[in-house]
Amino acid sequence: MNYETLNHTGQARFDPHYHNKYATLMAAGNGALGVRATHEEAYTTQTRGMYLAGLYHRAGEGETTELVNLPDLVGMEIELNGELFSLLSGEILGYHRELCFARGELTRVVDWRSAQGQRFTIKSTRFVSAQRLGLFCLRLAITPHDDTATVRVVTGIDATQTNSGRQHLAERELRVFDNRYLQGRYRTLDNNADVTLCCACQVSPQAQVSFSAKNRRLLQHSQQTLTAGASFTLEKCAWVSATPDGPDDNDAAQSLIRLRECAAAGYDALLAESLQTRRAWWQGARVEVESDSGQDQQALDFALYHLHAMTPRHDERSSIAAKGLTGEGYKGHVFWDTEVFLLPFYLHTAPGVARQLLRYRWLNLAGAKRKAARGGWQGALFPWESARSGDEETPPFAAINIRTGLRQKVASAEAEHHLVADIAWAVATYGQATGDASFMAHEGRELLEETARFWLSRAQEVNGRLELHDVIGPDEYTEHINNNAYTSYLAHYNVALALETRRRVGGPDDGFIAQCEDFLARLFLPAPRPDGVIAQDDTFFSKPTIDLTRYRAQAGSQSVLLDYSRAEVNEMQILKQADVVMLLYMLPWRFDNATVAANLDYYEPRTIHDSSLSKAIHGIVAARCGRHDEAYRFWRAGCEIDLGDAPHSSDDGIHAAATGAIWLGAVQGFAGVSVQNGELHVTPSLPRQWQRLAFPFCWQGGTLSFAMTHDTLTMTSARAVRLFINGMAVDVEGETVFHRDGNVWRKEALCNPTR
Amino acid sequence: MNYETLNHTGQARFDPHYHNKYATLMAAGNGALGVRATHEEAYTTQTRGMYLAGLYHRAGEGETTELVNLPDLVGMEIELNGELFSLLSGEILGYHRELCFARGELTRVVDWRSAQGQRFTIKSTRFVSAQRLGLFCLRLAITPHDDTATVRVVTGIDATQTNSGRQHLAERELRVFDNRYLQGRYRTLDNNADVTLCCACQVSPQAQVSFSAKNRRLLQHSQQTLTAGASFTLEKCAWVSATPDGPDDNDAAQSLIRLRECAAAGYDALLAESLQTRRAWWQGARVEVESDSGQDQQALDFALYHLHAMTPRHDERSSIAAKGLTGEGYKGHVFWDTEVFLLPFYLHTAPGVARQLLRYRWLNLAGAKRKAARGGWQGALFPWESARSGDEETPPFAAINIRTGLRQKVASAEAEHHLVADIAWAVATYGQATGDASFMAHEGRELLEETARFWLSRAQEVNGRLELHDVIGPDEYTEHINNNAYTSYLAHYNVALALETRRRVGGPDDGFIAQCEDFLARLFLPAPRPDGVIAQDDTFFSKPTIDLTRYRAQAGSQSVLLDYSRAEVNEMQILKQADVVMLLYMLPWRFDNATVAANLDYYEPRTIHDSSLSKAIHGIVAARCGRHDEAYRFWRAGCEIDLGDAPHSSDDGIHAAATGAIWLGAVQGFAGVSVQNGELHVTPSLPRQWQRLAFPFCWQGGTLSFAMTHDTLTMTSARAVRLFINGMAVDVEGETVFHRDGNVWRKEALCNPTR
Repeated sequence: MNYETLNHTGQARFDPHYHNKYATLMAAGNGALGVRATHEEAYTTQTRGMYLAGLYHRAGEGETTELVNLPDLVGMEIELNGELFSLLSGEILGYHRELCFARGELTRVVDWRSAQGQRFTIKSTRFVSAQRLGLFCLRLAITPHDDTATVRVVTGIDATQTNSGRQHLAERELRVFDNRYLQGRYRTLDNNADVTLCCACQVSPQAQVSFSAKNRRLLQHSQQTLTAGASFTLEKCAWVSATPDGPDDNDAAQSLIRLRECAAAGYDALLAESLQTRRAWWQGARVEVESDSGQDQQALDFALYHLHAMTPRHDERSSIAAKGLTGEGYKGHVFWDTEVFLLPFYLHTAPGVARQLLRYRWLNLAGAKRKAARGGWQGALFPWESARSGDEETPPFAAINIRTGLRQKVASAEAEHHLVADIAWAVATYGQATGDASFMAHEGRELLEETARFWLSRAQEVNGRLELHDVIGPDEYTEHINNNAYTSYLAHYNVALALETRRRVGGPDDGFIAQCEDFLARLFLPAPRPDGVIAQDDTFFSKPTIDLTRYRAQAGSQSVLLDYSRAEVNEMQILKQADVVMLLYMLPWRFDNATVAANLDYYEPRTIHDSSLSKAIHGIVAARCGRHDEAYRFWRAGCEIDLGDAPHSSDDGIHAAATGAIWLGAVQGFAGVSVQNGELHVTPSLPRQWQRLAFPFCWQGGTLSFAMTHDTLTMTSARAVRLFINGMAVDVEGETVFHRDGNVWRKEALCNPTR
Repeated sequence: MNYETLNHTGQARFDPHYHNKYATLMAAGNGALGVRATHEEAYTTQTRGMYLAGLYHRAGEGETTELVNLPDLVGMEIELNGELFSLLSGEILGYHRELCFARGELTRVVDWRSAQGQRFTIKSTRFVSAQRLGLFCLRLAITPHDDTATVRVVTGIDATQTNSGRQHLAERELRVFDNRYLQGRYRTLDNNADVTLCCACQVSPQAQVSFSAKNRRLLQHSQQTLTAGASFTLEKCAWVSATPDGPDDNDAAQSLIRLRECAAAGYDALLAESLQTRRAWWQGARVEVESDSGQDQQALDFALYHLHAMTPRHDERSSIAAKGLTGEGYKGHVFWDTEVFLLPFYLHTAPGVARQLLRYRWLNLAGAKRKAARGGWQGALFPWESARSGDEETPPFAAINIRTGLRQKVASAEAEHHLVADIAWAVATYGQATGDASFMAHEGRELLEETARFWLSRAQEVNGRLELHDVIGPDEYTEHINNNAYTSYLAHYNVALALETRRRVGGPDDGFIAQCEDFLARLFLPAPRPDGVIAQDDTFFSKPTIDLTRYRAQAGSQSVLLDYSRAEVNEMQILKQADVVMLLYMLPWRFDNATVAANLDYYEPRTIHDSSLSKAIHGIVAARCGRHDEAYRFWRAGCEIDLGDAPHSSDDGIHAAATGAIWLGAVQGFAGVSVQNGELHVTPSLPRQWQRLAFPFCWQGGTLSFAMTHDTLTMTSARAVRLFINGMAVDVEGETVFHRDGNVWRKEALCNPTR
């Protein structure tokens, strides 16, 4: 694999309407630190952002806990011969901006003629180290072409940054050590965390340097007069750290030590070191595709780049936010997206990370039990929106209706309880994919039992059977309904998993087994109608339908809510996102192909896809039905959620789950890989646009390599693995090649199992 | 007087380096509400600002109480055919910006060609009502010239505004009433005050309108497609209010009522109403000058415009901040500047306002007594920096030294005690100028006695005489010295005033009289040396001098502190600002002309004038000595503090005291008017550049009109007034004209005393 051929997200035109989209798409990150890709020079329309995973704070009463937008390091005031550099003024003679996914380096080269008529080349490169988690480096070079020029650059640590006006940090101390190292020390306003930023800006010895500290800005002023053709260079090396679990005065000193080490190493050495770490990561994860469209490989690389950037591998007290570390959307909170849309990627590329993401939930069991108890239930009801404390972070009320003044209760935190079963589903999937018996006997068992206990207490008896009332399924346009198929099937699965685990690993004689057996025997699971369609909930079929064409054309914009109130939408057959289809995706072994097709055909036309979680799941389910074109169309639509042309689709951050779904679509959809009751199934379903698909895949402690075309399927495994191709059991060891023969895959005679 | 001829501060060129200077100079205000003159469209280099007098808040521990920068009303996102309007892009074909001091209206007209090549005229006007204290109006008109164009304007209430990143307000509720009235309700984070902003944006019925509330922004989106030559207009009418003394839910409803009234009246009627109020104000205050330079009249009008804008006439719990309501400099705190530099203007144009400014101090006596008691003294020690609580608001430590990490104690709050006597001086001047016996018997007596008590306890006995040790005079480059002449003479005067008042109005038999007599008899007052020079303090003459040429050339920049530490400066004969010269100014009757001249000549060359309070005082003292050219030079230099070319001199706000000093220079300097021991003295001293000077002047319940040329002095008074011209007693009634005859002014024979 040649890393230089990795596609990139390039931006060939400067357009203020796209400032925030590209600030998100091209953001840098290493799972601990995320930095939005704003331009060095300021623009009123761009939102700067830098975040540390797990560093949350609530700005005051009535506010919501949110990921803190840290003091800015990217901003630079650049003055060229006294003229403030801005691409809004003067003339852009050349512009290229490129994020290299392989290197994790963002480059911008601008050829610019100032309003005064002087030509300059301004080049900057930057990266967040994949190796040193607090490290951000930026290199700037400015070359005047026409004549002698004076370049002035002011940059440092700018703590005027807020989350849309909400300030979380009090300034404690600003320092300049050794005429070189700038340090800003901050503490969250609740006194619960320290934040330290340090940076050094190396310029040539000819430059004049001074420092200033005013209005929450600690700045280095560098100035140099150059002859034409000579370059002013500035190498900014910054270290960012925080102590999210309590103030720690030692952090400042440690940060300075780290910074000194980094500054001594310099940009190139630090980038090389980071690249080595990234290289290993890509080797274990990259999905390669040969497609009619180069955008497909780009989308996969984009997705994986961000999956790397968003995941706090370093800290099991943090999990993946809905927008990763790229923006303030959803306040940096963690949703079921992590377990359902993101965890499978880690399960099969870095199982240790998947384990850690589940430990995040396990460590937060106390909060989940508190929430269950507050609702009058037993076991664990995980918060709909989770941060670091493990408590429910969903604001109790939605934003006020500005016309009526009424605040609506946020229904999801109240009733969208399926996430409990989703987490149990993820635990089981982890156990099956890794065979990690130790985790399953300890954290896994506890998670499965506590989530099961919630369902045992949540169900109510109606004429002898158990029902789940007043829930919300994944389709949030249908609220407070009874016997939502998704929720009930998943709850049933959750309890079954807990029962199976308890039977396997044992436990106290507490009646749990009997309770589970009773629950499983009596829980009402809506069965398919004669035509195969499963009722989304008790009343769904009785509701009227309307023409959704207009709203489906604007999928993702929630435009239906401009015409109808939520209460009205609730009383119609309108789906925001996959619900029964989501169920088909989650528990494929429970439904035959005819049932899957019937539900897809019934529900999809009633679905607006107003959630970024919707289209990709439809795509996978369609692929499993062998509907290649439909599957590919859905998969592309999923890629467009971030990568499409809409200028503001990603302003508030990346759609983390959608990036996970790009991988899911390729691996679970087109390669047709699924885990069903502990078995690994492969049912290749390449779209006609793709000629080849290859990826590494972790399975029960080993790694399989998959490579498939329309007619061949090559699998490589160092040790013997049993799996099922189109339902037929095969054993793979070494490189094994299969050839398609109609609907059957036959093993190649000449494979060499020990190669 | 033709109000249309009032000069204006015009800006004929768009230059981002001057954004904040002009945002300050052209700020709008009515004493209650101040709005910085930022452009409607956003620029990264401009600092928006809107303030309500008396609305202070401390952002958190370790922070300083500051005037709250309120949610913004000025900002508008203007999109013309999809292109964001910014003067940094496209081409500026015409640009004119003008603040009319008489109307209090700011106008900007821009003729602009977009990057796409389309020509537009964008005109805006705005004002803060002089009549309705919460009212701010803005009118925008956009005309496409070449072709049909789509105009989109987004504006409303933007609560992402902070004080350099410090947020003071929690968002409580955002509403849109009747599809028209936007309202944002906020509460300070300490829950001590409510803030309500309302606005209505009237556009033509052809425009499409919608609303949004997100990320602390409540916005109206207006869009209209126009044919060439037609205009899009938007009339924004806003009401701003706060309850600084405690939350009050009623404020929101009241604000909305006020806004509805105003919106119904419309921009033109509201401006006409405001203009009427302004007209009356100018009539009672304007100083007219005929000068070789038109800049002199402009400076005077500029000063008076801002004196009107900065003074909270509506609220005796507020006083005038060092930057008025135009910026965040000095955190909106009140200094001795108010009593010494600003109060005289009110004394002689609106004595009721002067009374109210003194009542602000009287109402804050409790805090002043607390501060004195904390220092171990008696009486009242007013805070060096005052806000609304009456407590000391000076941060205990100055900004950290970023190189050493050390914080220096702020010496002014510790030892710059002369402000106590300055306030007493102002009280006495008020009593003499107004003859307000009721005030003097009540508030005046208490203020004089409590300030005197402070000095009685502050003095210490040294070999039988009383001395004032460890003080700082007005010259802040000489700290912690003994027997500062300014402080001692003023303290002496303070105690004498208290004694005189006690004798006049009576009081308890508490030994106060005897204490005062003893103090006055024994306080050490440094006498002039044989050459007439008075020692600034005990050690001043023993300190070395250095060449100050370089620093004096950069007066106001404190550049000496780049070369020397404060401790080093303290040990040299270096003055930041007038100190002994300030004393000569304050108590002119104590020093003869020879002494004044000797001290001016000795101290001025040793003064850098690094304070905006310095040059104007030198100018007045020089004028009193008959040094016309020197006086004029100093007066002009005082005008340049804000009006000069330096691009960043006024970024943080107007120099309020300097605007007062522009008036002082004309009236006390060139007209030579002074109050000495209750007598009104006039010693005309017009500079040769001026041909005529005229102004109204309140004196003991009546109003005198002065008009003078080099040879004539015309005074008009409805009732008989005794005053002293060049020391000679004259009586004036009706219009009285005097002609100069050498150094004597002779009454014109034909004056008609009853006219």
